[in-house]
Amino acid sequence: MRRVCVVGAGQGRYGVSKETGREMGARVAHEAINDSGLKPKDIQAIFVSNVLGMVENQGHLGPLIATSLGIPQVPSMSIEAACASGSVGFREAYINVASGMYDVALVVGTEKVSQLDVFRATSYFAMGSDYTYEGRNGVTFPGLYALIATAYLHKYGATQEQLAAIAVKNHRNGAKNPNAHFQKEITIDDVLKSRMVAWPLKLYDCCPFSDGASAVVLASEDMARNLGDERISVLGSGRAGMTASLHDREDLTRMNSARVAAEQAFRMAGIGRKDIDFAEVHDCFTIAEAIALEELGFVEAGKGAASAQDGLTEIGGEIPVNTSGGLKSKGHPVGATGVGQIVEAYEQLRGRSGPRQVKDAEIGLTHNVGATGGTAAVNIFGRR
Amino acid sequence: MRRVCVVGAGQGRYGVSKETGREMGARVAHEAINDSGLKPKDIQAIFVSNVLGMVENQGHLGPLIATSLGIPQVPSMSIEAACASGSVGFREAYINVASGMYDVALVVGTEKVSQLDVFRATSYFAMGSDYTYEGRNGVTFPGLYALIATAYLHKYGATQEQLAAIAVKNHRNGAKNPNAHFQKEITIDDVLKSRMVAWPLKLYDCCPFSDGASAVVLASEDMARNLGDERISVLGSGRAGMTASLHDREDLTRMNSARVAAEQAFRMAGIGRKDIDFAEVHDCFTIAEAIALEELGFVEAGKGAASAQDGLTEIGGEIPVNTSGGLKSKGHPVGATGVGQIVEAYEQLRGRSGPRQVKDAEIGLTHNVGATGGTAAVNIFGRR
Repeated sequence: MRRVCVVGAGQGRYGVSKETGREMGARVAHEAINDSGLKPKDIQAIFVSNVLGMVENQGHLGPLIATSLGIPQVPSMSIEAACASGSVGFREAYINVASGMYDVALVVGTEKVSQLDVFRATSYFAMGSDYTYEGRNGVTFPGLYALIATAYLHKYGATQEQLAAIAVKNHRNGAKNPNAHFQKEITIDDVLKSRMVAWPLKLYDCCPFSDGASAVVLASEDMARNLGDERISVLGSGRAGMTASLHDREDLTRMNSARVAAEQAFRMAGIGRKDIDFAEVHDCFTIAEAIALEELGFVEAGKGAASAQDGLTEIGGEIPVNTSGGLKSKGHPVGATGVGQIVEAYEQLRGRSGPRQVKDAEIGLTHNVGATGGTAAVNIFGRR
Repeated sequence: MRRVCVVGAGQGRYGVSKETGREMGARVAHEAINDSGLKPKDIQAIFVSNVLGMVENQGHLGPLIATSLGIPQVPSMSIEAACASGSVGFREAYINVASGMYDVALVVGTEKVSQLDVFRATSYFAMGSDYTYEGRNGVTFPGLYALIATAYLHKYGATQEQLAAIAVKNHRNGAKNPNAHFQKEITIDDVLKSRMVAWPLKLYDCCPFSDGASAVVLASEDMARNLGDERISVLGSGRAGMTASLHDREDLTRMNSARVAAEQAFRMAGIGRKDIDFAEVHDCFTIAEAIALEELGFVEAGKGAASAQDGLTEIGGEIPVNTSGGLKSKGHPVGATGVGQIVEAYEQLRGRSGPRQVKDAEIGLTHNVGATGGTAAVNIFGRR
């Protein structure tokens, strides 16, 4: 398989939008194509990541976005793997270009959920769980991650203050991101005093429901070279699964799918953990970032919770994590989230991240999880 | 890219099922793996085609099916392109194996809709249309295809009797298929006297809402050789799009996406229309089969409607079409439909189709359409 580059990115502001999912998707797709220097007619395939289209009664978004771009003849599909849809869609586009099937592909993640109240939104999201055994019995995602958090705090003696520090760090980064859903700093006290959602997770341990869209354009390295220096390369890519339901797991504090996906990606890239300059990880809840850092191999098991408190994951720290603000502060528009992580990697590696820029960033990683780990995808990108 | 084979197939009976979508999917997946001579542990990636998971509140089916197979670590995703999801999912699996990313992949199409009443089912299906302009204004799929049929009858002077003959032929085939939703023959009169749905389409011009599941296992040719002679090869594959909404089209009787997808598949296979021994085509409504035959190049524009009346598409005719019974008689469990077409091609090419066997079948084609053509996928298979 040949080398593939990301040659353009489009990123709308996450939050509450008055646009439809199709409008947001088409807008960021236009932005990404313009950013790449290509024209819409150069796009050969479109991969849409969208999970909750039924909220707008709209499946089959691909032809609608293609038509908005003036290229209705281009084949499209929607890809779903719960909250990892964006990264899985990206990986399919990557394989399509790497294989030589297409030279240029567009990935568009888009999601519109703000018309739902919290009850309905949580219920819709619960379709990503093992609904028969979990969602249907009232265990929605805050509850599932609370079970994981409870097991983690018990096993490792970690504290709620440590988890809170993860949210505080991500809000500090998000406050510097003009596309973030929440652009304000918070304190440890804000987190600890926020409303209890499912013990030990409080409101500020949880990411928001966001509308939003993100897009990237991929091209073969040969094509990318002709477009100038504004490209990054896919160095590694991995994807794995695990039981969707918590009751089938031996240890609630482990997420094997992420570990395996990371191993695949690092092996393919031929690099080690020390080579990573920054990472966007899936922090749908603070506990998720703690475990992500462990499965990715950045810290030992049990050491993830303290990572933010210790300054390890700050911009300027040993391994800056969620410079964008992460799901917690940048927001979590399901299908768009994984694509948005790749947009952040693209901007960081091109040195365009302004006040949240990681100095001399050469290699970045993205980590995206579907549900409680039923799907995990890890991608590694290089500046050259 | 290397050559890829289909090495196993699983096909449940389409109709009304008491199983969930996940149970049906897992069952046919087991069947397909057993049929291939491989073990579940040999599967490296799972591609699920499922469109209406929200009916069961269950998205993210991949990890559930993987867990049922005892291989939770295997990566999975759901692929959607409305009613073409099955073929698009298959094509992604094909590209993944052809590229060398994986050696063995499983495609599972599954759908559960029978708990919906007709109003709700039609409304859910309408999410595949351009909902903002079509579904929301009351134009669901029977209405959209009725507009196409009206334009076709007007332009070519075709008759309702000709369209009825397509349904009669497909029921005749379906009556010989133990997995078909409807296993009874009907007459021209039955069709013409059936309840009007949307002029000129009557109830028996329309395919049913079906529950059902189908699965196939793909392997690289090298792996397939080790499994013995029970394999067929992917000779060609194409996929294209067009405007989802009818109001953007110059000619309602044309489906450009299918024509382009067919051209791609024939070019890749390096064969012509005369080389095809049988075809499974997307007959969600009788008019759809008429137009399909034209876009695939089997007959000239305007000649598709008369194809069944003329005996052209009978088993034993020049180009047997929908030997399985097609969507009309075998049934249309959305995400499973395209995979089921490939199962039929597999069985025909292996000479296992019993009373509906096409004699000396060497090369077969499948044609699957999403919505009114926003997506079209065409695959060509050979006995060797």
